[in-house]
Amino acid sequence: MEQQLPQLVTVMNMLLLAAIIIAVGRARGRFGIHAPVMTGPPEFERVLRVHANTVENPVLFLPCLWLCVPYYGGFWPGLLGVVWILARAWYAQAYASGGNRGPGFTIAIVANLVLLLGALFGVLRAMWILASAS
Amino acid sequence: MEQQLPQLVTVMNMLLLAAIIIAVGRARGRFGIHAPVMTGPPEFERVLRVHANTVENPVLFLPCLWLCVPYYGGFWPGLLGVVWILARAWYAQAYASGGNRGPGFTIAIVANLVLLLGALFGVLRAMWILASAS
Amino acid sequence: MEQQLPQLVTVMNMLLLAAIIIAVGRARGRFGIHAPVMTGPPEFERVLRVHANTVENPVLFLPCLWLCVPYYGGFWPGLLGVVWILARAWYAQAYASGGNRGPGFTIAIVANLVLLLGALFGVLRAMWILASAS
Repeated sequence: MEQQLPQLVTVMNMLLLAAIIIAVGRARGRFGIHAPVMTGPPEFERVLRVHANTVENPVLFLPCLWLCVPYYGGFWPGLLGVVWILARAWYAQAYASGGNRGPGFTIAIVANLVLLLGALFGVLRAMWILASAS
Repeated sequence: MEQQLPQLVTVMNMLLLAAIIIAVGRARGRFGIHAPVMTGPPEFERVLRVHANTVENPVLFLPCLWLCVPYYGGFWPGLLGVVWILARAWYAQAYASGGNRGPGFTIAIVANLVLLLGALFGVLRAMWILASAS
Repeated sequence: MEQQLPQLVTVMNMLLLAAIIIAVGRARGRFGIHAPVMTGPPEFERVLRVHANTVENPVLFLPCLWLCVPYYGGFWPGLLGVVWILARAWYAQAYASGGNRGPGFTIAIVANLVLLLGALFGVLRAMWILASAS
């Protein structure tokens, strides 16, 4: 299961991204706003913001997740990834519907921060060990 | 050739991205619209939209492509990737020039969807086999 | 050190991205501009542009960096990555503060271009060798 849990998290992240891409297309249809126009009522712009955030998030999340795997194995990074993806889905749903996006945002950012600091610590420790051994 | 075909597709995707980044710079020059301004005539905004789409697309495409490789080898995912990159280049050209971007968009989205579902199936089957064996 | 140097560069890139995400939140607070609004005084919009650029850049940079590693090892790609990340940090700071972002931009684009062409050459040569051998 070492590789499969972070792989599953990655696939779930891609499913979330595909879902929001579809949601943007539907919102463009519902509000009659055709590309390249990027402005409209707040309900429409919120969907665009969720989309932008959902595109942006894997860029930070996936490298942090996968840099942890060689140093901690797949299980704990994958588990943090499951927390992250559930929090992101919550956030996306709350933001798009005008609800409270605070809790989802905070949980996701904490999970991502743990993975980022874990990756930093894992890499620096490995470099230190290699430097000491030579 | 197992790894080389998806690697080549990834490089081609990066070349497409570099090309559109250059196109944005040239469009800013041609229309005299300097950063951070993001609005202007439709011809200019279309180039910005192609740029945004071209940045967004590898975020969905590359993880789907590379998650398929451990489960199906490099050839079939790579071949779908070649279809995808050609469709994306067609789409970018059609969108920026105000032409019909429908066919390129549809082919690319179908190719990406096959890779996404292939990755999901591959990971879930691997988890199932590992869970059954233990 | 083969894998550690490009890993360290990747982590540093993620730290830069986290820093600019925090900077956007602070700029929203300082100028009192709440999401989903994406317009405001030039100082605010510049921070948004730096953010967009900083999200966009790993999409081009990280695949180029990591595609070079199997062909050239971790050291030279990693060293180019260190140059790139320092130039990107310089660029981000100069852009956000309204300074001269030219030098940082140019150095980063050249480093990325070398990695892109290196990846292209490495992959094509490997395909050529494999095709010749069969």
